[in-house]
Amino acid sequence: MGFFSKEIETMDDLFVHTLRDIYYAEKQILKALPEMVEKATDGKLKQAFQSHLGETKTQVQRLEQVFQMHGVEPKGVDCPAIDGILEEADGIAGEVADKEVLDAALAAAAQAVEHYEITRYGTLIAWAKQLGRNDCAGVLQKNLDEEKAADKKLTQIAEAGLNLKAAS
Amino acid sequence: MGFFSKEIETMDDLFVHTLRDIYYAEKQILKALPEMVEKATDGKLKQAFQSHLGETKTQVQRLEQVFQMHGVEPKGVDCPAIDGILEEADGIAGEVADKEVLDAALAAAAQAVEHYEITRYGTLIAWAKQLGRNDCAGVLQKNLDEEKAADKKLTQIAEAGLNLKAAS
Repeated sequence: MGFFSKEIETMDDLFVHTLRDIYYAEKQILKALPEMVEKATDGKLKQAFQSHLGETKTQVQRLEQVFQMHGVEPKGVDCPAIDGILEEADGIAGEVADKEVLDAALAAAAQAVEHYEITRYGTLIAWAKQLGRNDCAGVLQKNLDEEKAADKKLTQIAEAGLNLKAAS
Repeated sequence: MGFFSKEIETMDDLFVHTLRDIYYAEKQILKALPEMVEKATDGKLKQAFQSHLGETKTQVQRLEQVFQMHGVEPKGVDCPAIDGILEEADGIAGEVADKEVLDAALAAAAQAVEHYEITRYGTLIAWAKQLGRNDCAGVLQKNLDEEKAADKKLTQIAEAGLNLKAAS
C-alpha cells in the first residue's frame, strides 16, 4: 500500500478487516473474563462467566479456522470499540462497593460485550454469504449463536433475582 | 464523597450512573450522525441515518425527562465504550475508498452503535422496574423500541442490496 492509498478497497478487504477486529476483540475478552469471574459474587453469574470463558476459547479457534478457510493469516487489528467497552466495564467495577450492586454492574457490562460481538458476527455472516462464502458463514454462525445464548442467560440471571437482591 | 469512598453504593446510584452514560452516548451520536449522512451514498442508507438523527434528538429529550422524573440533574459521564465505537466507525470510514464498500462499512458501524444503545436501554429498563420506577421504564422503552427498529432497518437495507452491490 502506498502512502496515500486507502487500505480497504473491496468487500473482501472489509470482511477480512472486520474478522481481524473481532479476533482482537475475542482475545481481549479472553484476558478480561477471569477478573470478572473473580469479582462476581452471585453463584449463577460466576458460573455464567466461567462457562463463557470456555466458549470464548473455542470461538477464537473458530475464527482461526475462518482465517485459514479464507486463505489469510490470523491476526488482529486494533479495535477501539472493545477497548472502550472493557475500559468502561473495569471503571464501573472499581466504583461499586456493595457486592450485589457490583454483580448487577458486571452482568450489564458483560451484556454490552455480548452485544458488540452479536453485531459484528451478524455483519460478518451477511458479508460472508454475499461473498459466496457460506462455509465461513456457517462457522461464524456458531459463534453468533453462543453470544446470543450468553446474552439471554445474563438477562435471565439478572431478572431472576440478582437485581432484585441488589435493589432491596 | 471522601477520597477513598466508591461513588456507586446502591442500585439507584448505578441506575443514575448508567442513565448518565447513555445520555453522554446519545449526545456523541448526535454529533457523529451528520457526517454519516454526508458520507453515505446509497439513498436508503442516507435516509435511514437522516431519520435516525431526528429520532436521536427526541431520545435525548426523553432522557432529560427521565432525569427530571427521577429528581436528578441531567448530565453526562464519560463513556469510553461509545467513544471507542465512534472512533472505530470514523477510522474504518477513512480506510475505505470505494463508495459502495464505504456504505457497507457505515451501515455496520451504525449497527454497532445501535447494539450499544440496545444493551444499555435493556439494562436501564430492567433496573427501573426493579426500583419500582415503571414510569421511567415506560419512557426508556420508547427509546429502546426506536433503536431496535433502526437496527432492523439497517439489516434490511444491507441485506436488500447494499452489500450485494458492493460485493459485485
